[in-house]
Amino acid sequence: MNDAASEPTASARSEPGEVGLVEPRDFVSPAPFTFDNGLSIPGFTLRYETYGRLNATGDNAVLVCHALSGDHHCAGIHSLTDKKPGWWNNLIGPGKAVDTNKFFVLCANVLGGCQGSTGPSSIDPRTGQAYGITFPAVTIRDMVRTQKRWLDSLGVRSLYGVIGGSMGGMQVLQWSLEYPAFVQRALAMATTAREGAQAIAFNEVGRQAILQDPEWNHGYYPKGGGPRVGLAIARMMAHITYLSDASMDRKFGRKAVAAHHKTAPGTLATGAASAPLGANEASSLSMEGVDPVAPAATFDVRFEVESYLRYQGQSFINRFDANSYLYITRALDQFDLAATHGSLEKAFAGVQAATLVVGFTSDWLFPPEQNRAIALALLRAGKRVSYAELATDLGHDSFLLESPQIYDLVRGFLN
Amino acid sequence: MNDAASEPTASARSEPGEVGLVEPRDFVSPAPFTFDNGLSIPGFTLRYETYGRLNATGDNAVLVCHALSGDHHCAGIHSLTDKKPGWWNNLIGPGKAVDTNKFFVLCANVLGGCQGSTGPSSIDPRTGQAYGITFPAVTIRDMVRTQKRWLDSLGVRSLYGVIGGSMGGMQVLQWSLEYPAFVQRALAMATTAREGAQAIAFNEVGRQAILQDPEWNHGYYPKGGGPRVGLAIARMMAHITYLSDASMDRKFGRKAVAAHHKTAPGTLATGAASAPLGANEASSLSMEGVDPVAPAATFDVRFEVESYLRYQGQSFINRFDANSYLYITRALDQFDLAATHGSLEKAFAGVQAATLVVGFTSDWLFPPEQNRAIALALLRAGKRVSYAELATDLGHDSFLLESPQIYDLVRGFLN
Repeated sequence: MNDAASEPTASARSEPGEVGLVEPRDFVSPAPFTFDNGLSIPGFTLRYETYGRLNATGDNAVLVCHALSGDHHCAGIHSLTDKKPGWWNNLIGPGKAVDTNKFFVLCANVLGGCQGSTGPSSIDPRTGQAYGITFPAVTIRDMVRTQKRWLDSLGVRSLYGVIGGSMGGMQVLQWSLEYPAFVQRALAMATTAREGAQAIAFNEVGRQAILQDPEWNHGYYPKGGGPRVGLAIARMMAHITYLSDASMDRKFGRKAVAAHHKTAPGTLATGAASAPLGANEASSLSMEGVDPVAPAATFDVRFEVESYLRYQGQSFINRFDANSYLYITRALDQFDLAATHGSLEKAFAGVQAATLVVGFTSDWLFPPEQNRAIALALLRAGKRVSYAELATDLGHDSFLLESPQIYDLVRGFLN
Repeated sequence: MNDAASEPTASARSEPGEVGLVEPRDFVSPAPFTFDNGLSIPGFTLRYETYGRLNATGDNAVLVCHALSGDHHCAGIHSLTDKKPGWWNNLIGPGKAVDTNKFFVLCANVLGGCQGSTGPSSIDPRTGQAYGITFPAVTIRDMVRTQKRWLDSLGVRSLYGVIGGSMGGMQVLQWSLEYPAFVQRALAMATTAREGAQAIAFNEVGRQAILQDPEWNHGYYPKGGGPRVGLAIARMMAHITYLSDASMDRKFGRKAVAAHHKTAPGTLATGAASAPLGANEASSLSMEGVDPVAPAATFDVRFEVESYLRYQGQSFINRFDANSYLYITRALDQFDLAATHGSLEKAFAGVQAATLVVGFTSDWLFPPEQNRAIALALLRAGKRVSYAELATDLGHDSFLLESPQIYDLVRGFLN
């Protein structure tokens, strides 16, 4: 992309090397959309962000696909006081591995999501009420097909690259087989062409935690509210599967919380630990009226890892819709390219993109073998594919690591 | 034990090689018991079973220690129509690895448990009501100390062996350092001298599922009821950690349930899947009045592994007390021989028993490294110890495998 280097840099960039201030936008498709299962919605919205500029020939776009709990905000900040940039900010920016000086980088919240894109928490225009569980079951392919409509609307004529980790990697694979002529480069990390039984099992426990929460109440619409406790439990459990034994031991080990949480209400993690996960008073963990040396205190937070997990659960329920969690985990579990196409080789038969698959040694959710299997099938199908296996100890979330190794791989693949 | 071979075989034995019919008994200690945390109860009961006969010198006893969700019923059957024998029946019996023709084999439900031994669901004689969460926090050492009182009452003068897996292995270690002159042989499998952060994290999510269930209600005594949903969620999740990715893939893979569960209500697993986990109507999964092709059906059971897990959760709540689950997981998490004694070597300084530690390659809950660390510390402390690492793919539950390798190890160690 030699011509891209002379393009103006993103006007939003406020400091060197950073995307800087960004604003999400909405793509509103007024045309009906028919899901894989045959059901339709009258139209949909995808909330998205872009960084860099689309070139005149419309072929310098790099699409970023997010994971289960991710969203469209993958780089930059929303305000100057924003402490946390987008989730892949370390990878995306001017001069970074995904170089916004060269590429027009885009990311949309997935269909079925809850961060601005149409999903179960959106209003069904036919009823004036939230879809709730009347929202059609969504698949990875449905996500990708809505994204295609959005990219077409922006004048993107082909994808220079599509990149994602975990569920984002599933979308990458689906992109390259659904729109083979449209995708030039596909980069899938920490992903799988189909989950194993253990990954399905963990998702199922998370769904049950939500479904069995009395507040779920058959989808909790139109009444609102929702299964905050169940969602927090699901998130706490899932969060463990994104890390690794080694990384948790390094970060927390068996460290006890510095002091009883009541004596340190100001700190974030302990503050979260002392707060009930849900709004239900009866299930509150606060122990007012109970003698602090009474045995009941046994179940207060003791170890730092407990405090951390409670915080993870607590913060998740403030940003995620429980029904979206049900729909998207189902999309993950149902994704099975081999079953859908007869075999993985057949699934990839039409692929034109050059593909890079990256597995991580410590990823026990979508383990290296499953990533390798994708690369091998592409190879057997006669496609251009490379496979890299990186030795990390962060587990599934390794694809989010601040790692020069990852940056070099991505940069090299895109150039 | 040459003299044991001439002893009469267990009268309860109804068929060759099997322990046969057994009856649980209760040891009732009327003397107060003071827990590690200084709190006392006026007395306690341990429910137990024995197989084989104690010899005249009282030194052919082999104590079996059970894991978190286990109980005293480790061999034999309770009635002739009993389809499921005790949990370690494959290992224990006349002529088996733990040979009841030679050994007097005993197993007691742990203090804090709910299968007949004193725990949170027992009546506090001082109030006439169930202890609930006024029951003192229990430790592995508390469990062992109550067992010592019980063994003394039976005339057991020393333990020929003490054997256990997982939490049972923790008790084995505690036995040999608490009563060094009493324990001749210690066999600990799939265990740890202290859990890592990941194991604590999983236990914490299970506890939160229970504590945050509105039905937990600060211990749910004296009112009864209890957090059935929370306990089922905790069990479903924990059950995944007892297996392995490979074993789940072999057993279930991505197999779909044979038919929609409503069309096959008679089968056990699907029957369980269609039943709500809890008594709460609002959280029921049944979909009466909902169009069966409506998208809500998305969250019905799809994969066999889901059906299996729901069954695991469902059956657990019918046999286990949620408060016991809270207490015993805390005992697991707090167990830390190195922290208690300064180092693992110091902890083992007084050990006299010959020890065998067995780790399993596929155990990711208490991984081989943690088992090896026990053996190494005993070695550094100058003790008699062997370590075996068995290549299995069943995960943590490998110690329960029907495996000639395990039988040979156990038999060899006891002879």
